[in-house]
Amino acid sequence: MLPIKLTWDAPIKREMKQVEEELRKSVCSEEHLLTDICMHVIGAGGKRIRPGIALLAYKAVGGKEMDKFIGIAASFELIHSASLIHDDINDAGEIRRGKVAAYKKFGVQKALVAGDFLFVRSFRLGGTWDKRVVEIISDACTATAESEMLQSAHDFDAKTSRKVYIKVIGGKTAKPIEAAALVGAYLGKATEEQARALGDYGFNLGIAFQIIDDILDIDGSEKELGKPKGIDLTDGKSTLPLMLAMKNPEVGKRISKLFVKRKKSQKEVKEALSLILRTDAVHMSRRAAQGYSEKANAALDVLPDTPYKKALKELVRVVVSRRT
Amino acid sequence: MLPIKLTWDAPIKREMKQVEEELRKSVCSEEHLLTDICMHVIGAGGKRIRPGIALLAYKAVGGKEMDKFIGIAASFELIHSASLIHDDINDAGEIRRGKVAAYKKFGVQKALVAGDFLFVRSFRLGGTWDKRVVEIISDACTATAESEMLQSAHDFDAKTSRKVYIKVIGGKTAKPIEAAALVGAYLGKATEEQARALGDYGFNLGIAFQIIDDILDIDGSEKELGKPKGIDLTDGKSTLPLMLAMKNPEVGKRISKLFVKRKKSQKEVKEALSLILRTDAVHMSRRAAQGYSEKANAALDVLPDTPYKKALKELVRVVVSRRT
Repeated sequence: MLPIKLTWDAPIKREMKQVEEELRKSVCSEEHLLTDICMHVIGAGGKRIRPGIALLAYKAVGGKEMDKFIGIAASFELIHSASLIHDDINDAGEIRRGKVAAYKKFGVQKALVAGDFLFVRSFRLGGTWDKRVVEIISDACTATAESEMLQSAHDFDAKTSRKVYIKVIGGKTAKPIEAAALVGAYLGKATEEQARALGDYGFNLGIAFQIIDDILDIDGSEKELGKPKGIDLTDGKSTLPLMLAMKNPEVGKRISKLFVKRKKSQKEVKEALSLILRTDAVHMSRRAAQGYSEKANAALDVLPDTPYKKALKELVRVVVSRRT
Repeated sequence: MLPIKLTWDAPIKREMKQVEEELRKSVCSEEHLLTDICMHVIGAGGKRIRPGIALLAYKAVGGKEMDKFIGIAASFELIHSASLIHDDINDAGEIRRGKVAAYKKFGVQKALVAGDFLFVRSFRLGGTWDKRVVEIISDACTATAESEMLQSAHDFDAKTSRKVYIKVIGGKTAKPIEAAALVGAYLGKATEEQARALGDYGFNLGIAFQIIDDILDIDGSEKELGKPKGIDLTDGKSTLPLMLAMKNPEVGKRISKLFVKRKKSQKEVKEALSLILRTDAVHMSRRAAQGYSEKANAALDVLPDTPYKKALKELVRVVVSRRT
């Protein structure tokens, strides 16, 4: 008989439910529209990877006061949701989690306020611990803001270096995931070695996650993604697969030419996407993601064997093989 | 010989300088553009009322560890600056503190990120104390977001009630000032009575401040304000003087008709402003502000007589008689 394959969040099912309740409670406001906008994003689903990692890290190092930890785990999802709302305003993203973007439905003004509201709510949940927790979370958010600035400085720049790309996705995606792992480790009273390991896990998983995201923008299924493909290309955002494809000796020049165009027709986006698929860029990017995911897994070696460690490894597998 | 009139911040000159340094340090980023955008707003001046009140409240109740308190005092100005940047995006305000609005100069995308960055930096400064401080600050920011939602629900609504108006400016302006006073009181180890008094002081001063702001949008000097007049009228924002003018038996109907127009010509705005000045709306609004400022002063009675209490009272005078 084959062993039953468990989902990554199997050992924290109950806690993940509590996180959902906390999220709903946190965005409750007497201004119902504010709650509606937040729930438009939070209620649309999402994988809840950030709170999940915080919970698993906490348990993996022997954290015991789970009930007290739910709020802080939820705060990572609130920050994430705030970023999604503001990002969509910035990128003019039309679809998010299979639904129309918040600013499209409610207007830029109200969506902007709702994003600020979510930041504040997460601050309230995350800030009621000690100084170290505030530092970890705010440093991650600082890195996010900085990386967005760095990214936009390289918009439509076909010469963006791999170093800049890793810095951008490091700040944008990996740092917040690292922060979730670090806070779980810290509050779970991890040793220094364990905390460093969980931080490395989160950071490398985050990089792998973003590379896969960037790949799916090229070869994903629009139906499964719940949004159109080719957004990065259209917006002139340098991603690893795009950068690699632009180096291809045969079609790279043509892809670059299309990439740097500020206004692209549907036809041009389609052409670029199909040219990219003729290169090994997607394959090489998947290998890069695989490399980071292996680093994430290896970092966990110093932790004792528990169902939580197993779940963290399963999460790596899920992230790298995901299609949405 | 007449006594020399001291400015309200005279007893905290040194600390206010330290606040300035802290502000500059807080927005320092390796992404220079982020620092530039923040400094565009912070460096443009402003009265620094929020940190000033926090410092004075702290000292008025006998707070001693001033050096430790500078950061948190600065955090109120960072939150305020973040709000200004995001508000200008929302209201399409073109001029701020006599300079072109940040989003106009740097683009909506970068200004939005800079606002988020300022929020995070203030979180880092304000969140490193204890739970109560985080609660006070985040509750104030929550009230701000909620009141913005409430306000926009009443855009172009000539029937907005005075109760709604007070709730809007309470959340938008008075709560953050109240929070500055409360945090100063709390960390300065105020008695419960003193803390309540300083909270009342801050709240009532905030209401008076906003009413004066709303009056200046009607009868202020554009040169002194550093921005055009009639913005609230143009944007359909219900303010006390506008609400009172719309009730005037002679010209109220005409003002209302102009107020509810989504698109107004320059000529129409001018017409409405001059009609308002023919009513007693500005006079009555000043009286209302005076009433709140008296409440603010009266709240201070329970405090011991110190130069800090005197400065808090002087600040009330400055706020109510201000022209910018």
